[in-house]
Amino acid sequence: MQAVVKEKPAPGLKVATVPKPTAGPGEVLIAVRHAGVCGTDLHIADWDDWAQHRIRPPVVVGHEFAGEIAAMGDGVEEVADLKVGQLVTAEGHIVCGHCLQCRTGNGHICRNTRIIGVDRDGAFAQYITMPVTNVLPLNGIPTTVGAIMDPIGNAFHTVLTADIPGSTVFIAGCGPIGCFAVGIARAAGAAKVIASDVNARRLELAARMGAHLTINAAEDDVVRTVLQATGGEGADVVCEMSGVPSALHQAFAAVRMGGRVQLLGIPKDAVPVDFASEIIFKGITVYGVIGRKMYETWDHMRRYLTSGLLDPRPVITHQFPLARIDEALAAIRSGGAGKIILEIA
Amino acid sequence: MQAVVKEKPAPGLKVATVPKPTAGPGEVLIAVRHAGVCGTDLHIADWDDWAQHRIRPPVVVGHEFAGEIAAMGDGVEEVADLKVGQLVTAEGHIVCGHCLQCRTGNGHICRNTRIIGVDRDGAFAQYITMPVTNVLPLNGIPTTVGAIMDPIGNAFHTVLTADIPGSTVFIAGCGPIGCFAVGIARAAGAAKVIASDVNARRLELAARMGAHLTINAAEDDVVRTVLQATGGEGADVVCEMSGVPSALHQAFAAVRMGGRVQLLGIPKDAVPVDFASEIIFKGITVYGVIGRKMYETWDHMRRYLTSGLLDPRPVITHQFPLARIDEALAAIRSGGAGKIILEIA
Amino acid sequence: MQAVVKEKPAPGLKVATVPKPTAGPGEVLIAVRHAGVCGTDLHIADWDDWAQHRIRPPVVVGHEFAGEIAAMGDGVEEVADLKVGQLVTAEGHIVCGHCLQCRTGNGHICRNTRIIGVDRDGAFAQYITMPVTNVLPLNGIPTTVGAIMDPIGNAFHTVLTADIPGSTVFIAGCGPIGCFAVGIARAAGAAKVIASDVNARRLELAARMGAHLTINAAEDDVVRTVLQATGGEGADVVCEMSGVPSALHQAFAAVRMGGRVQLLGIPKDAVPVDFASEIIFKGITVYGVIGRKMYETWDHMRRYLTSGLLDPRPVITHQFPLARIDEALAAIRSGGAGKIILEIA
Amino acid sequence: MQAVVKEKPAPGLKVATVPKPTAGPGEVLIAVRHAGVCGTDLHIADWDDWAQHRIRPPVVVGHEFAGEIAAMGDGVEEVADLKVGQLVTAEGHIVCGHCLQCRTGNGHICRNTRIIGVDRDGAFAQYITMPVTNVLPLNGIPTTVGAIMDPIGNAFHTVLTADIPGSTVFIAGCGPIGCFAVGIARAAGAAKVIASDVNARRLELAARMGAHLTINAAEDDVVRTVLQATGGEGADVVCEMSGVPSALHQAFAAVRMGGRVQLLGIPKDAVPVDFASEIIFKGITVYGVIGRKMYETWDHMRRYLTSGLLDPRPVITHQFPLARIDEALAAIRSGGAGKIILEIA
Repeated sequence: MQAVVKEKPAPGLKVATVPKPTAGPGEVLIAVRHAGVCGTDLHIADWDDWAQHRIRPPVVVGHEFAGEIAAMGDGVEEVADLKVGQLVTAEGHIVCGHCLQCRTGNGHICRNTRIIGVDRDGAFAQYITMPVTNVLPLNGIPTTVGAIMDPIGNAFHTVLTADIPGSTVFIAGCGPIGCFAVGIARAAGAAKVIASDVNARRLELAARMGAHLTINAAEDDVVRTVLQATGGEGADVVCEMSGVPSALHQAFAAVRMGGRVQLLGIPKDAVPVDFASEIIFKGITVYGVIGRKMYETWDHMRRYLTSGLLDPRPVITHQFPLARIDEALAAIRSGGAGKIILEIA
Repeated sequence: MQAVVKEKPAPGLKVATVPKPTAGPGEVLIAVRHAGVCGTDLHIADWDDWAQHRIRPPVVVGHEFAGEIAAMGDGVEEVADLKVGQLVTAEGHIVCGHCLQCRTGNGHICRNTRIIGVDRDGAFAQYITMPVTNVLPLNGIPTTVGAIMDPIGNAFHTVLTADIPGSTVFIAGCGPIGCFAVGIARAAGAAKVIASDVNARRLELAARMGAHLTINAAEDDVVRTVLQATGGEGADVVCEMSGVPSALHQAFAAVRMGGRVQLLGIPKDAVPVDFASEIIFKGITVYGVIGRKMYETWDHMRRYLTSGLLDPRPVITHQFPLARIDEALAAIRSGGAGKIILEIA
Repeated sequence: MQAVVKEKPAPGLKVATVPKPTAGPGEVLIAVRHAGVCGTDLHIADWDDWAQHRIRPPVVVGHEFAGEIAAMGDGVEEVADLKVGQLVTAEGHIVCGHCLQCRTGNGHICRNTRIIGVDRDGAFAQYITMPVTNVLPLNGIPTTVGAIMDPIGNAFHTVLTADIPGSTVFIAGCGPIGCFAVGIARAAGAAKVIASDVNARRLELAARMGAHLTINAAEDDVVRTVLQATGGEGADVVCEMSGVPSALHQAFAAVRMGGRVQLLGIPKDAVPVDFASEIIFKGITVYGVIGRKMYETWDHMRRYLTSGLLDPRPVITHQFPLARIDEALAAIRSGGAGKIILEIA
Repeated sequence: MQAVVKEKPAPGLKVATVPKPTAGPGEVLIAVRHAGVCGTDLHIADWDDWAQHRIRPPVVVGHEFAGEIAAMGDGVEEVADLKVGQLVTAEGHIVCGHCLQCRTGNGHICRNTRIIGVDRDGAFAQYITMPVTNVLPLNGIPTTVGAIMDPIGNAFHTVLTADIPGSTVFIAGCGPIGCFAVGIARAAGAAKVIASDVNARRLELAARMGAHLTINAAEDDVVRTVLQATGGEGADVVCEMSGVPSALHQAFAAVRMGGRVQLLGIPKDAVPVDFASEIIFKGITVYGVIGRKMYETWDHMRRYLTSGLLDPRPVITHQFPLARIDEALAAIRSGGAGKIILEIA
C-alpha cells in the first residue's frame, strides 16, 4: 500500500510502498479516508531534536485519521458493537489499560503510552490497524472532521476542564487547536470569548469560529485589552495554546483573581515565572493539558459534533492527496494555514 | 404610599395606602418600578394551609421586584458602590450572615432566613427598604427583567448546579421557572433540551425559549419519548419543576444511569419512591433546590443577562398596574400564563 | 473440584463436585483461598422473589473471594503485570468496557454487567476464572481481607463519594458494610462518627471500628441523639446502610441543611417521601450507591489497606470451611454476625 | 495601652504607649491575650523592600491573635451571637464584602483587602478592634492556639483544597505552616506524609506532627526519596511551603502524573520553569494559596481543633511577653524555631 514514511534518521519524508498490515486479535483494520497533518509531523520531517530522541525509523507517520473498517481481528466482535464497512476514527494514544492512571480514568497520562505515527506505524497510509479499545464510531460525523478529532480533542480537553458557562474566556494562540477552542467555548456557553495571535489570517479564523473579540498581539496591548473587555477583572478562564513565553506571561496577567489557566502550548525552553505575582497572590489554578481524556473527551466530541453544537470545518483551510505531503508541510510552515487534511481514499 | 396588603387572616388581598418606609442604618430605600407575581402570592391571597401557618397579617406582599434607589441609610455608602438614582433589584431572602451556612457560602439554606412579602413587608408597593447586602445593580438589565430575577434565579440554581455543556437535559414542567430553565440550558450549551407539560400554551413558551423537543404529558408517553430522543440512554440531567407525583416518577425513569435529578417543584403530599429501582440501582444523584445561591447565582444571572446569552422576556405574558392585582392572580389561576408583572412606577 | 452450587429453581444450596474451569484468552484461573458470604447468597439459597427472577440454575454461587493465580490464558502476560502464584482478589462485576458508562469511568453502572455467582459461575469453589481486567493484586493484603474487598468496596464507594475530612458522619445500619463504613470514615478524618442499629452486638462492632457514639435505634431517639451530638445542626454526611424505611426517614431528618445522604441499603418496597421537608427545603444531595467504582474504589482500598489506615478484620466474626456453607448462612440469619468467611484452600 | 509599633520608615520596632481604641458601629473591641509572631513581622522590623512599599508608619504591628471581647459597638448584638467576656480570635484580612470575589465565596482574593498590622493597626497590643464579620468564637480552643489560627488557616487552606484521604502527601518546607500542614494531612487521612527541610530541628517538629518520613534536603536526594516512598509514582499531592527555587523544582519532579501541587511559599525572584516537563506533560494541577478561605477554612479549623483531630501545640516552641518582641524576632531569625507566641494579658 502507499504510505508516507520516515525512512531513516535524517530530514525528509518519503511516499513509499509498504506492506499492508493485518488485524491481529483484538485489533481492527481500517481503510484510511482522510488524515490530519500536525506540527508533530513537521518535527518528524525536519528531524529536529525532539524527533531525533523519539523516532526510530523506519516508521509510517501520521496520527490523526478517519476511515472505514476493512476487517476485524479475533475477539473484536464479541466485545464491541462494530462492523466491517462502518466509518470510524481512533484515539492515537495506545495506553496500557492496567496502570494506576489507566485504571482511574487518567489514561491520557499513562506512562506506557505508545503513539501511532511516532512510536509505531501511523495513519498516512491506505490502511492502519488499531486496538479495538481505541476505535470510535463516527455516527454520521464526516470523515474530514473525524480525521481531525485528535486535535479537536486537545481543544475539548483544554476548554471543558474549566467551568465555561457564563464565563469570559481568553484564548492565547489561534492555531487550529486555538480556533477549535474558540468554537467549543462558544458552544459551551461562554459569555465572552477573546482570542489573540500575531497572525491576522489566524485571527480571521478565530473570528469565524465565534470569537467576540480578537487581538493582534503584534500590534495591540493584549493584557490591557482583555482587562478592558472584562470590566477590569480579567478573564475567568485563559487557555494558553501558543507556547510562546510572552503569551504565557499574558495568560497569567490577563486571568482574573481566582481564575484558571489551561496550558496546552509547549514552550521550547524554560520560562522565568514570578510565582508570587503571577500565580500565588492571584489565587489561581493552573492545569497542564496533555492529549485527550480517555474517553470522556471523545464522549464530549460525539455530543457536540453530532448535535451541531460545534462545526469545526471553517478551520480546515487545505486538502491535499497523500502523495503531496510536502505541499501540506509547506502550508503549515507558511504560518497562516488552519488545519490541513490529506485525502487518502 | 400604595401597596398590596394582606390585611387579616382570611382570603383576599387589598390595595391600600400604607406609610412609606425609611432606610435605617445599612439599608437602601428603593422606589419599585416593576414587580413579579408568583404562585406564592396566590397562596397568600387564597389563605391556604401554608399561608395560615406562615403569614402574620398585616403585611405588604410581593417578593420579586426592581426599581430605583431613592435613599440610602447610614453606612451604606462606605461599603457599597451604589448611588441614589441607580436601578437595582434585590435578593428577597434576608439571611443572618453569621451562621455556619451563611459563612460557608450556603446562605440559601440559612435557618434564620426572613423572606420579604412573607415574613416582613414586601415589594408590591411604591417603596421598599432592603439591607444593602441584598441589593444588586441592574447594570443595564431592564427593570421588567430585574423584577423577575428571583424566579429566574431559581432556574439558574436548578440548571447550573448540574453539568450542562454537551448534555441532554429534560425539564419536567413548563411554568415560568421551567421555561427559564429551558433557555438557561440552551445558553449553557446543552446538546438537547426536552420539555414536558400538560398545557399546550406552556409548551409553546418552552419551544420559544429554545426546547428542541416538547412533550405533552397529557397525551404522550413522556419516558418513552425522552428515551427515544436520547438514544435509549435517558437524559443526563433532569430538572423536575412541577411538583406533580407522576412527573417525579418520570424524572427518575427518564434520567440515564449515573445521571442527575434536580428537584425544584414541591409535591403537596408524600410520594412513594421505589428507592431500589428509581435511585440506588441507577447510581443517580438527586439535589434539592431552594432559593438562589447567595450570591453565586446572581453572578451567573448578571453574566447571562448582560451578555445576551439569555433573554427571558418571551416568558412574560402579562403586565398589569398594581391596582389590578386581582386580574394578575386570575391570570395565574388560568394555568396558561407565563410570567406576570405588576407596573408600579 | 468442590463447589457450592444452586442446582435447581428451589430453596437450598448444595456442596457438589463440578468440573474445574480453564482460563480462556484474556482470562486468569485463580485457586480460591477465602471467600466472603453475603446477604445475596442467602437470597439465592432461600430462593426469594429476586432470586427467582435473576438466577438461572445450575450456577456456582459466591462473588467475594481472594486466592492464588493458578494459570493465565492467552494474551494475559502481555497486558498485565501478573504471574502464576501471585495472590489476588477480583472485582465481581464483569462489565462490557465499551458502553458510554464504561468509557467514561462509570463501569459500576454498565447496563451489560454480569455478576459472578449470580449471572455466571462464582467463587464458592476451589477454582474460578476471571477476565484479567477484573483481577487485582493483593500486594500484601491477607486473603481473609482480600476475600471481602467486594463489600469493603461498597463501603468505600459510599463513604468516599462524600466529603469526609472534618465532617460529622452518621451511619444508619451496622451490618458488615456499615461497620466498614465506620472505619473508613474514621480513617478519612471524620470529626465525629455516629452509628445506629437495632442490634447491640452490631453496635459493639461499630464501636470497635471507631464509632465515637452508637445509638440503639430500638431504644433511643435516633434523630434527637444525632442532632444533640452535632450542636443541633445535624450530620454533614449520612450513610443509609440498612434499607429500613424508618432509618431512611431518620437519614433525611438527621442530615444537616445542605448535607449529603448516601443510599446503599435497599428498601424492599416503595417508601413514601415528603420531598418538600425531607429533601428540597433542606437543600440536600442524595446519591445512590451501587457496586464499586471501577477502579477508583479499588485504588482507594489498596491505599487504605496497605498503609494500615483501615483494618477491617474486627468485623470478621466467623470462619467456616466451604462444606459448612449452611452454618455460615445460619450465622447470617441470626442477625448478630459480622462478616463471615469460607475457608477454601 | 502598650503596643509594638512601627514608628517610622526605618529598621526596628518599638514597644510604646498608644491610645486604646474604641469599638465603632459593627465593631468589636478585643482584649488581646496571645498573639503569634510571623515572618511578615520580621520583614516589617527589618524594613525590607516589600515593607518599604507597603507599610505607612506609624502602625501597630501583629496580625495573629486571640483574646476576650471587651466591648461591642452599635449593631453588633443584633447580628452576631457574641457577648462581652467571650474568648475569640479573628480573621486578619478585612475584605470589602461587596466585590465579585467576596460575593462568590472568594473573599481571600478580594482586591480591597486590608490586613491588620500591615495596612492598619494590628494585634501586638493590649486591645484591638475588629469588624464583627471577622470575629470567630474559640468555643473552647485555648487562646495560645487561637492566637495562631491565621497561619494554621494557611495550612488548612493549602492541604484541604487537595484530595487528601488515602493520598500520599509531600510537604516541602517545615516552617510552622509546613508543620501544621503535616498534622492536617495526617488528620485528614493521608496514607503517607513525607516532609523535607534543610533544618534538622524543623524536621523533628514535622516528625512530632506525624510525618511518616522526613528528608533532610541538605543531605539527601529529595526527589529520589519521595519516588521510592511512593512506589515510583510520585506523591499525589505536593505542598510547597518554602518558597525556595530548588524546592519548587522538587515539587514538580516529586508529584505523580496527574497530581496536584499547592504553592504557598513565596519565591523572592522569578524562577525558570520548564513548562513542558514540569507541568504540561505531567498533566498536573497547580494552585496558588493565599490567606484563608472566608469562612470555609475557619469552619474546617473549628471542626479539627475542637474535635481533637489536630493538636498544633507541639509546633509552638517559644513564648515571650510583649515587651520582649526583639527576642521573639531573634528566635525566628535563628531558623530552628517553630511558632513563637507573645503573651499580652
